Order: sequence, then C-alpha cells, then structure tokens
Amino acid sequence: MRIAELSRRSGIPVPTIKYYLREGLLPPGELSSPNQARYSEAHLSRLQLVRALLEIGRLPIASIKDVLAEIDRPKPDVHTALGRALKAIGPGDEAVDAPEVDELLARHGWEGVHPSATARRGVAEVIAALRRLGAHQTLARLDDYAEAAQRVAEIDLAVVGEHDSPEGKVYSAVIGTILGDALLAALRRLAQESASARTHGLKVKK
Amino acid sequence: MRIAELSRRSGIPVPTIKYYLREGLLPPGELSSPNQARYSEAHLSRLQLVRALLEIGRLPIASIKDVLAEIDRPKPDVHTALGRALKAIGPGDEAVDAPEVDELLARHGWEGVHPSATARRGVAEVIAALRRLGAHQTLARLDDYAEAAQRVAEIDLAVVGEHDSPEGKVYSAVIGTILGDALLAALRRLAQESASARTHGLKVKK
Repeated sequence: MRIAELSRRSGIPVPTIKYYLREGLLPPGELSSPNQARYSEAHLSRLQLVRALLEIGRLPIASIKDVLAEIDRPKPDVHTALGRALKAIGPGDEAVDAPEVDELLARHGWEGVHPSATARRGVAEVIAALRRLGAHQTLARLDDYAEAAQRVAEIDLAVVGEHDSPEGKVYSAVIGTILGDALLAALRRLAQESASARTHGLKVKK
Repeated sequence: MRIAELSRRSGIPVPTIKYYLREGLLPPGELSSPNQARYSEAHLSRLQLVRALLEIGRLPIASIKDVLAEIDRPKPDVHTALGRALKAIGPGDEAVDAPEVDELLARHGWEGVHPSATARRGVAEVIAALRRLGAHQTLARLDDYAEAAQRVAEIDLAVVGEHDSPEGKVYSAVIGTILGDALLAALRRLAQESASARTHGLKVKK
C-alpha cells in the first residue's frame, strides 16, 4: 500500500508517519519508483506499536528504538530479552547499592533480580523521595504494595505464558508491561475515586 | 536562609532553584535587600516536592502547578480536592463515552466515578491500543488487573486515612498516588524479573 492508505488504515496522519520514518522508528517502504514507496501489513502493525509506545507508554524515542530492537531480534532468549527490553525504559544501568531494596527482595523471596536492574534503582529512588517528603505512612506500607505488585507480575507472566514462540512472548511482555503501567495507573485512580467517594461520603454529580 | 543554603540543604543546584522560581513552582523568598531573598523551611519542603513530581512523577510543569494549587487550598473538601489534583495528571476532562469501562466499573462495584474522570478515558485508550496491537491475552485478564488495582487503592486509602487534617489527606494522597505509580511500576518489574528468572530457568549473572 502507499503511504496515503497506510495513513487511512492506521488513522495516523501522513506527516506523523514521515516523522516516524525519519526517526528510524518505522523501517522504510519498498521503493516502487524513485519518489514512491510501498508499505506492507508489517508496517501497519509496527506503526500501531510505535504510536502506543509513544502516546500511551510515553517512552522517549531512544527507548522505543531499544525496545523495537529487542522485539526484532530473531530467536530471542526470553529472560535476557525481557531484561534488555524493560531495562530500556528506566533511567540507567549501573549496579546500585540499595540495601533497603535488597531487604525488600529477600522478604518477598524475589530471587534472580540482577544487581544492576533499573527497577532496583527505581524503587530506591522512590523510597528516598518519600522519605524526604515525610511520607512515612506510605513507606510503612511498602510490603503491602510489593504484594500487590507481585500479584500483577503473576498475571503478567501468565499472559506471556500463553504465547508459544519466544518472539510472541517478548512482544507480549513488552506491550503488556509498558501499556500495562498506564492501564494499572488508570485502574488505580478509578478504584481510588470510587473508594474515596464511599469513604468521604460525597455524592458525585452526574 | 539564603538561596545557597537552600541549595546545600536540598541538594538541588542554585540554577535549578532559580528555574523553579521563574516557572512559579516555588514561591518567591522574602526580600531582605533589593538583590537578596530569604527562604524558609516551607521553601525547602516545597522544593523537595517539586523535584519529586518532576523527576519521579515525570509530570509536566503545568500539571505540577495544578497539583500544588490543590495542595495549597485551605480547608479542602477531600474528595473534590483529590479528584481535581489527580485529574491534573491525565490527558483531559471531557465526558468520555466508554461503555466497556462502564461495564468494568459495574462488574467491580466501583461506584461514584465521575463520567468525565480522566482515568476513565485512560482505561478506554489503553483498551483500544491493546486491541489494535492484538494483545487479546492481556485484554482477557482485565478483571484480574482491576482486582489488583483495587487492592492497591485500598492500601492508598488506608494511608490517606492515617492523616487527620484534610490538608494532610490531600498532600499524602497526591504524593502517594504520583510517586506510587513509579513505585508500583518498579516493584512490578522486580517481581516480573524474579518470576521470569524462575519460569524461564535462567541463572542471573551476578
């Protein structure tokens, strides 16, 4: 298909598609003449994925390139690919000295977490910020939040397990994790709003 | 204290503090001479909050201003203030026609959610994106994710309930929710990595 049809079928404007092409987020089409390229169904799928990672995942372009590289790797080793793809999302990758996080991991039996895991730094940073802000009540519930996160991870892994191929597992884990963060944040707010309406006894105007 | 001490005690460079002042994220100090201002402990706390909302919450500056305005409102009505403060985080505030989200709310007994709640749109957008990406396995687990989100919201509300004053409830809800998203995302990845290490049987290099 030509770029106009790709735009129509994806609902994404032509200038946006050209921008993705320039940024290397979408592979070039096959040239059918010096000025015209043809695009495939694979381009359409990739376009939807890039849009979701940008608009819903709010990932920076460099992270999206890393994630796409992992998805495109042939015959991935699932655990390593997941680690690399999800590491692409966080702030860095040096080993982090975070004894509180180590204790949390031990309390919950979370073995096998790499010492340089970005999420280890992420948890350490949030704990430090909560402490600076005096949010001791939140810190006191850290283990409750960890249990809820473990439940989420169990659902995540069950979803990944329903795919047979390593490529399918990696694709599903990446979109499930990145879009899943947005989904969980939004579901959490709906549940909060409902619980707050009950607790604080306010009638919500319709 | 002078700006140099504010910088030293907060660990935030003077140019960054000046940037926050220019953007209106930090109220001006009290002028002690035409070229010199003095800052209080309240400035120090506000500075920590702004940094956390920016660096960990990754909120845009306009949203941070909205959130700070809610936190500063005297004698807030808790449910309304929470709604306004957390709405400041999402993409918009028009009423959303999202029958699937309404069904989800009904299935989980989540009453009292405003028709224009930003999170309602957020859930609808993620569902639409997952469908476009063919992530049917994730969609089939929507209710499992909603149950996990409800558990998180119950912990959130318990934390808020430990504060006596309405101001304390709003402050704690805002930082707990915004920093909590980052905390949960990072905890989820740690739990995933551990579960993946077990499931995919890989030894993690230390």
